[in-house]
Amino acid sequence: MPGTQAVEDIQAVEDIQTAAGASAAEQVGAQDSVQAGAPKYVFLFIGDGMSYPQVQLTNYFLSASQADTGKTVAVDGEEKTILQSKNHLAMMDFPVAGSAQTFDSTSFAPDSASTATSIATGKKTWSGSINVSEDFTQTYETIAEKLKAQKDYKIGVLSTVNLNHATPAAFYAHQASRSSYYDIGLELIESGFDYFAGGGLLQTTGKNEDQEDLYTLAENAGYQVVKTQAEAEALGADSGKVIVIDEHLADSSAMSYELDRGQEEWALADYVEKGIEVLDNETGFFMMVEGGKIDWACHANDAASTITDTIALDNAVEKAVEFYEQHPEETLIIVTGDHETGGLTIGFAGTDYDTFLKNFENQKISYAKFDSDYVSVYKENKTDFAQVMLDVTELFGLQAPAGEGSSATQQKDSADLHPESGNDGALVMTDYEYGLLKGAYETTMSRTGEEEEFAQDEYIRYGSYEPLTVTITHILNNKSGVNFGSYAHTGLPVEVLVKGTGADSFDGYYDNTDIYNRLAVLLGVE
Amino acid sequence: MPGTQAVEDIQAVEDIQTAAGASAAEQVGAQDSVQAGAPKYVFLFIGDGMSYPQVQLTNYFLSASQADTGKTVAVDGEEKTILQSKNHLAMMDFPVAGSAQTFDSTSFAPDSASTATSIATGKKTWSGSINVSEDFTQTYETIAEKLKAQKDYKIGVLSTVNLNHATPAAFYAHQASRSSYYDIGLELIESGFDYFAGGGLLQTTGKNEDQEDLYTLAENAGYQVVKTQAEAEALGADSGKVIVIDEHLADSSAMSYELDRGQEEWALADYVEKGIEVLDNETGFFMMVEGGKIDWACHANDAASTITDTIALDNAVEKAVEFYEQHPEETLIIVTGDHETGGLTIGFAGTDYDTFLKNFENQKISYAKFDSDYVSVYKENKTDFAQVMLDVTELFGLQAPAGEGSSATQQKDSADLHPESGNDGALVMTDYEYGLLKGAYETTMSRTGEEEEFAQDEYIRYGSYEPLTVTITHILNNKSGVNFGSYAHTGLPVEVLVKGTGADSFDGYYDNTDIYNRLAVLLGVE
Repeated sequence: MPGTQAVEDIQAVEDIQTAAGASAAEQVGAQDSVQAGAPKYVFLFIGDGMSYPQVQLTNYFLSASQADTGKTVAVDGEEKTILQSKNHLAMMDFPVAGSAQTFDSTSFAPDSASTATSIATGKKTWSGSINVSEDFTQTYETIAEKLKAQKDYKIGVLSTVNLNHATPAAFYAHQASRSSYYDIGLELIESGFDYFAGGGLLQTTGKNEDQEDLYTLAENAGYQVVKTQAEAEALGADSGKVIVIDEHLADSSAMSYELDRGQEEWALADYVEKGIEVLDNETGFFMMVEGGKIDWACHANDAASTITDTIALDNAVEKAVEFYEQHPEETLIIVTGDHETGGLTIGFAGTDYDTFLKNFENQKISYAKFDSDYVSVYKENKTDFAQVMLDVTELFGLQAPAGEGSSATQQKDSADLHPESGNDGALVMTDYEYGLLKGAYETTMSRTGEEEEFAQDEYIRYGSYEPLTVTITHILNNKSGVNFGSYAHTGLPVEVLVKGTGADSFDGYYDNTDIYNRLAVLLGVE
Repeated sequence: MPGTQAVEDIQAVEDIQTAAGASAAEQVGAQDSVQAGAPKYVFLFIGDGMSYPQVQLTNYFLSASQADTGKTVAVDGEEKTILQSKNHLAMMDFPVAGSAQTFDSTSFAPDSASTATSIATGKKTWSGSINVSEDFTQTYETIAEKLKAQKDYKIGVLSTVNLNHATPAAFYAHQASRSSYYDIGLELIESGFDYFAGGGLLQTTGKNEDQEDLYTLAENAGYQVVKTQAEAEALGADSGKVIVIDEHLADSSAMSYELDRGQEEWALADYVEKGIEVLDNETGFFMMVEGGKIDWACHANDAASTITDTIALDNAVEKAVEFYEQHPEETLIIVTGDHETGGLTIGFAGTDYDTFLKNFENQKISYAKFDSDYVSVYKENKTDFAQVMLDVTELFGLQAPAGEGSSATQQKDSADLHPESGNDGALVMTDYEYGLLKGAYETTMSRTGEEEEFAQDEYIRYGSYEPLTVTITHILNNKSGVNFGSYAHTGLPVEVLVKGTGADSFDGYYDNTDIYNRLAVLLGVE
């Protein structure tokens, strides 16, 4: 039981730390007994914005969608369906399930830069800062940098969003502001890490577009920069240092939402599979994999995209589990979130104890792609509401109330306060909901972007999102028995799901800095 | 490592179970190696409606309130305060922190009867049912009944709500409907359990008030029924079977909310302390302790009462920890929830990344006591809004906007969209919020109880609660950076925080039925 020993050792280390002000990692020299069982292959999956609600909603959606719920029982001669649910997500089957508090130096609702700093270095910092002390006089070395320098591990950093975005950056960069994308890009190149893969770099020629291109600099520094799947496919253990940019970039140069991804496009899981091929070696590797658009979907209160991107992350986790099965004594897999986003709840005031999660199958497109491919056209063409409603029905399943349009007249109304579960899929709006949607359409169509900030009630209704789009997802969410209470991050703790060598170290309800502290002890880095 | 062994054994048992349809408990005869380390003293704390949001919000409130946050750092010559937080709750320091899914046979947002059934017996059932099969042909024996019958453990059942309410009932009763309070009361008496303590029995003479009084029947059956603190104080190990009803019953014959509890009134912790005295014996005991009003507060979207009742439960947990410290090798403490209530989020659309949790110090009274002691009087006296606002300011800290009343004119407005954290405590409402409150006051004053159900938008705004009261707590919650998305239970998983002998068995992300399954294996009951 090396893991259990590690827990005790960590406790001892923490006692020393308290007494002497030394960090867990600095004390780790004394932990030789632990190092004997140190994992050689470490996977750290971070679902950005993925806390318990995101994981559980995804699992329940899969249960509802895949009809785990089919068992029936006879009661007074009538067949009643018994609701059931199994674990559909690989991460949920992990034997250890700790909880981590996520507050940062600024807020109980922290940001991704500071929380990733805590996970990568065991230190708290301000919201928006990456691996720098609160007085900005020190930088912190990350677990990935230490593993490369001290143990000669190969290092991979993957993200569905930009590779110089906050979460991936926290494994190689050290910046007072997460917005210093160009400087972060320079640090990416300097890191010498072996495998970067995912979304495109932001501000490749600097804020003012007057710097040398980051990709050129990367190539000058010996990186192979690959921007097509065909080239990515050809990569292997002998490829040397590589930066793989997804061929099918979407909003903000990130990878597509899983909901929008074409069959031919690589998913995050494909980049993990390729990463294993590139990184696998006798000494060891560390691979950080971010599901970054779970957060973006939650900010926008798009539950369907949240669910599908969580599934995409879990599919990537499955690739690590397959590797674990070949190296069970040497592999550690951690799946965690950095914070919760959106105040997502599996329940809504209007539906009481009912949920209608199969409804989400009706959503065919992410909020972001709807904005870019549809709403922008509506604005340009001044498309009328009846025309817009045709798309809303086609892409989100929502139908106008009877009398307000032809499509809905044959449908049963599922929007009463206590709908029967048999109404799944009948997404006819109530007059109240239809009024909200029409109001949002009018706001969207009338705004030029030059207006003042929304008033308090409008801000609560729309945040900083396109009123039409966020109202569509709000109505679909609420009719499905799901709600978001915020457009920002929240203070919920995150799950720390762990499998493999040393997993037992991660039990308990602790601070997110202890993810680093425990990992550093296990891995024997200082 | 008996705990680890137990986990492996449970896995083995589950494999057998899957193959043969036998329950974990039925297979437990083979688990002698585990029984060697079986805990003699078992505490099971259930925070009704207490999931991660309730626990974490309480901890962050205590951090904000007790100024863990006092550390400062100089940045460019300016002192900036660093937010910090430590574990204020005993339950958070427990070494094991599993997660349990809570769905029942009816819903992903289950009820307390079915979820307590799962915890007490390892079986799923319908929302509203207690320890009966889904076809109502079988009853399930509970962990408490088994420990009494098979191991001669003494048994205690405590709750801040009625002792024949769903959660406590699930440890001794077997009823198709949780509303069969009288029959549940009869089963309480039949149980022969040693120590009942908490809120008063409901329907003591039956639904139609035509049955023999339950307390009389209890005394006839050999129970000492105690209804004063003085009598409760006198109880001890030689008192025999006792039913202790709190002397200061509040709403629905439950114990007072912690927020309303007088200095002289016993808290839940006092009943646990007394319970230990009554139950302690050489053979062993099992004590189930419910913090039942966390759920009630969350249903009503009263965050301040949620926080204080969670603290009260944790204070009770501390009594168990003190006992553990005297019997560390023989004691097991589990703290869990049965489900989440209210869709509580530590974040709100109107406050973005900010929280102002110290605001909750302004609330001096629970929603329920405000309803009974104030709103009922307003209705009777047709109290005008200006007069009501004086109480609202006194009891909840909310102040009218400048120009709308004298009290607020000197206060800084903290209700802009992006308030500074320094505004804590200045609870001047915006015009928008004031309008909501005034509308709610008018709805409260105009309703006679004879009206039709609320329309959809009103139901979302007020649920089935007093519009004035629930709007007051909504505004206070939202100004504090907290939100509720539902008046019902939600589908979030619950924490399973465990300390003591066998704690390691409870790691992982599992079904709530596995709380029973793992406990049964550990305790060696069939």
